[in-house]
Order: sequence, then C-alpha cells, then structure tokens
Amino acid sequence: MSLLLAGRFEPVEREAWCTELRRALPDETLTVWQPGLPAGLRVAVDVAVVANPPPGSLQGLPKLRLVQSLWAGVERLLADPELPAAVPLARMVDPAMSEAMAETALWAVLSLHRCWFERLDAQPRGQWAPHSPQRRADEVVIGVLGLGELGRTVALRLQANGYRVLAWSRRAKVLEGVETLHGDTGCDALLAQAEIVINLLPLTPLTRDFFCARTFARMRPGASLVNLARGAHVVDEDLLAALDRGVLHRAVLDVFRTEPLPPGHPFWRHPRVTVLPHVAAQTDPRTAAAVVADNVHALRAGRPLRHLVDRGAGY
Amino acid sequence: MSLLLAGRFEPVEREAWCTELRRALPDETLTVWQPGLPAGLRVAVDVAVVANPPPGSLQGLPKLRLVQSLWAGVERLLADPELPAAVPLARMVDPAMSEAMAETALWAVLSLHRCWFERLDAQPRGQWAPHSPQRRADEVVIGVLGLGELGRTVALRLQANGYRVLAWSRRAKVLEGVETLHGDTGCDALLAQAEIVINLLPLTPLTRDFFCARTFARMRPGASLVNLARGAHVVDEDLLAALDRGVLHRAVLDVFRTEPLPPGHPFWRHPRVTVLPHVAAQTDPRTAAAVVADNVHALRAGRPLRHLVDRGAGY
Repeated sequence: MSLLLAGRFEPVEREAWCTELRRALPDETLTVWQPGLPAGLRVAVDVAVVANPPPGSLQGLPKLRLVQSLWAGVERLLADPELPAAVPLARMVDPAMSEAMAETALWAVLSLHRCWFERLDAQPRGQWAPHSPQRRADEVVIGVLGLGELGRTVALRLQANGYRVLAWSRRAKVLEGVETLHGDTGCDALLAQAEIVINLLPLTPLTRDFFCARTFARMRPGASLVNLARGAHVVDEDLLAALDRGVLHRAVLDVFRTEPLPPGHPFWRHPRVTVLPHVAAQTDPRTAAAVVADNVHALRAGRPLRHLVDRGAGY
Repeated sequence: MSLLLAGRFEPVEREAWCTELRRALPDETLTVWQPGLPAGLRVAVDVAVVANPPPGSLQGLPKLRLVQSLWAGVERLLADPELPAAVPLARMVDPAMSEAMAETALWAVLSLHRCWFERLDAQPRGQWAPHSPQRRADEVVIGVLGLGELGRTVALRLQANGYRVLAWSRRAKVLEGVETLHGDTGCDALLAQAEIVINLLPLTPLTRDFFCARTFARMRPGASLVNLARGAHVVDEDLLAALDRGVLHRAVLDVFRTEPLPPGHPFWRHPRVTVLPHVAAQTDPRTAAAVVADNVHALRAGRPLRHLVDRGAGY
C-alpha cells in the first residue's frame, strides 16, 4: 500500500510536503504524481493526498480508499469530474491554518474597530488627525458566519480579545462562551446587529452569491464585510454598489471570483476595499502532515476517518 | 472640600469628563478651572484633576492634598514649575486605556508578523503576490520594554495570542507566564532576540534618547520598532539611518518629539515608517472617572492613595 501526492505546487512547496509527509509517516511509501506515472506504481496507491490535483492524477488507482485534501475548502475538488465517486474524501483541518485564520480575522477586526485603515490612508497626505472616539472592544459586535473549524477558532479568538461575538451556522451548534445563532432567523439577527461580518461559510449551492444586494440591505448600516472564505460568496457589483451608496463602510477581501484578481478589477482601486492575495491562512505542512498521518493510521487500523466531507452538503 | 478639573480639553472632551466625574462622585463639588476663577472657589479645592493643566491653574490652592493626573505619562507634569512640590501626585491607570494599548500593540505585531503592511502597500500597484512563508506566532519573539500597567497588559495580551514574549523592566518584576528580564544584561538579551520591540518605557532622564544608533546596533538585524511611549525615547535621525541601512526593517510610531509631527518630517514619507497621530490609547472618561473616585474616597477616608508617582524616578 502507498501514498500518492498529487497537486499543483511550487517546487519549494512540493519539497516541504514531501519532507513533512515522510517525517510524519516514515513507514509509508510516498510517490509524487507526475504525467506518465507507471501503472505499477499507481496500482499500490490506497491514499491520494491532494491539493488541486492535475488532470489524470486521480485515475487508474484501483485500490484507492481515501482522498485526503490538503486544503480546507473542497468545492473545487467536488466539482472535479475525475474525483472517484465512491471513495471517502477528507478535508484538511490544520491547527496552524486555523490559528493563521484567527490572526487574519483579528487583524481585520482591530483595523476596522480602531480605524487603522483610515490612519494608514491618511499618512501619505500628511494628515495628523488624532481626534476620534475610542470605543471598547466589548462595544463592537462581530458576526462570524460559518462554524466549521475555521469559524469556531475565529469566533473564540475574537471573544478572547474582548469583542462581542455572534456566530452563525446553518444547523444549531454550541460554542462555549459565544452566542450562537442558526437558521434563517438567526442569520437575519446576526446581519442586523453585527458591525463587522466575517464570512467563513463553505461554498455550496446554498451559499454561492450569498453576499448580494438583498443581504447587504439586511446588514446594519455602515457595517463592514471581511471575506475570508471564497470569492463566489460575494456578488462583486452588489458589493461595490453597497460601498458606494454608503450602505457598507468597508470590505476586506482575501478571496475573489477570479484569482489572481484581474488587473482592471475595480476592487484594486476602491478606497474602501482592502485586497489581500488569498493569504489569510495557508496550510502548514509541518502540522498538516500530522493530520494526514492520523487519517492514514486510522485507515490502516480500521478506525473511523476524521474530517470526512458530506458530498450532499458540499462540505 | 471640592475638586478642580484643570486641563486643556476640546469642548466635547471637557463635557465627557464633567459628566463622568459627577456620575462617579455624586457627593463632591466639581469646579472646572477657567482664567480668573474666584479665590473663594479655589480655597476649598483639595483635589486637582489635571490633564496638561493651563498656567496658573495649580496656583492659589492652599488646601490642595492630591494632584490626580488623567494621563498615564506624567513627565510633562513633573516638568511644570507650577506643580506644587509637596502634594502627592497620582498617575492615571485606566483599565480601558490599558486594553486600548494592548489592542494597538497586537495590531502592530500582527501587521508585522503577517506582512500586512507590505500587502496594503502592494494594493495601489495592483500586485498579486501571494507567496510568502507563513510563520506561527510562537516562532515570533516579541520584546516589551517597560512593565508598568501598560507594558504588563500588552505583554500578557501578546502572550495570550500565541507570541513568544520577553518583557523587560529596570528592576526585577514577575509576570505570570511571561519571561521577564531586568537590568542592563536583560536589556541586551531582549534586544538581541526580539524581532519586534515594543517601547512602553516611562520617559525619564535615564530613558530619553534610548533608541539611538548604539541601541539599534544591539538589536537583532531586521527587527522592527513599535514606539507607543514617548517621542523623546527615539533619536529620529538614528532611526532613519538604521531603516535606510537595513539594520531595522520597519518602525510603527505613535509618538514624536514634536506633536503634531511637522509636515516636512521624513517619517511622513518613509516607505517603512508607519505614522499614527498619538492615538494608540486614550484615557476613557467612563472608566477613568472611577479610578479618580477611588483615590478621592481613599483621601477622604485616610486610606493609602493609589498609583502615586515617585518624583525621584520620574514615574
């Protein structure tokens, strides 16, 4: 039995994944996929470790028993017609990635709460404008949409830093010390109250285009949007219109419908849009390799696999 | 007996202080200082509540028993020749101000650790440059200089957010869960290790001009400086030279030798200097009034006063 690493990596990334996977699974054979990989090597593969797998890389693997994603979001993988339908698929839940996401969310929240974006914008104009009211963190209501691993880590981190956090998921969930909401009514309540809305929803047919004119109209006037999930959650034109009409104050966007964000896109130049190049949180091979190893050991031992994707729900 | 509020305030600030002080001390008489205040009103004053007191405001107060500053830094007050020499002086230790300082320090640390300044700088150039190594917070060593109320709150907040914190004070101090250092050797050790140095020292003859060429040469190459204390801690020319020679990576400055920072000052235009207009942390009248009230009650009851300034040490 052996592992196949199949992804489109920068050379330095591939090297890091190989090093860490071999360190975490010293007794396993790890093969790196390449075009024309001999059938003899394919036939022994029972675990495919994937990150945006190249065409053909998931075919001709008769003994495949687990597809382990290295990424948290799997909507692209689920749309891949070459993904074997009957093989369990696990998403990555990397603690270092969750912490990185919490750092990015906290940075965005602090920047919005304490007006740091405006301060940075004022510097090239040489503007010394100290007077602005200073509000306490517990006076700022943050809404976190999505209570998967990332949403939970973000909600807890913001709560620990003194913010008032409302956290929403489609189905009811409990998160210690955090006010959780669910369903349509819960979503409306969150949107009406939150001054900063952080999107960490999975991308599914139900959540695609969620941030549209109708949603912006339900948000608290002057609220800000922080999108750390997927670009297709947001209708770009509607967001621009909401910003320009003053319905929304600001947007911090890490993800876009087309990535890299095309050069002429209005987000690049909008004075109240912050563009980040999909860097909110990356999987860290050092910690993620241990997560892969756990699932490989579980598979070999016949124990239940972790972080399995519900293909019906899309996450 | 009565209280005198003496400061140079914006009208809205004066209003806020009067409201909150009257709410916190409903049984006290509060007089707001103005030029030509009748001697009959002065003679009853036993507590002066001050924020940059105007000339003459601390004179002709024969029954004065406490000068309570509304600001944390008192070096300017101590240099005021009209400050009565024999009256106890208390500094402000406002919990909301400490939290605001912790937020600013955390924002600066997150911005430096996660390269957000570079990301924001890249946006106007339309640069999509995602690839950069993502480091964990526990791989980033932060040095906090000064372990007064502000330094302690900052050190604990950074530690709680996963950073490795070294905290220094002149004399040995203990801070739960944080590695503390003291004396000259401790200072050298901190400067040699910290990738981000946060200045929260009091301004005294010993600390004035501390951040000079000699100190920058002892810092870890490529470190960044976050100055949240006083402008006179930093020798501006030496800081610019250290940045331009690559000895230092970046400076985040909230305080300056002259405030407002003069229009032609090179800090305004330096690509690796962030200028904030002295807004890292403001006293919050809502919480600070309770701190004033505690000391007024202590004075009336003959209990020990809190947060007294050691005029010899200068803080």
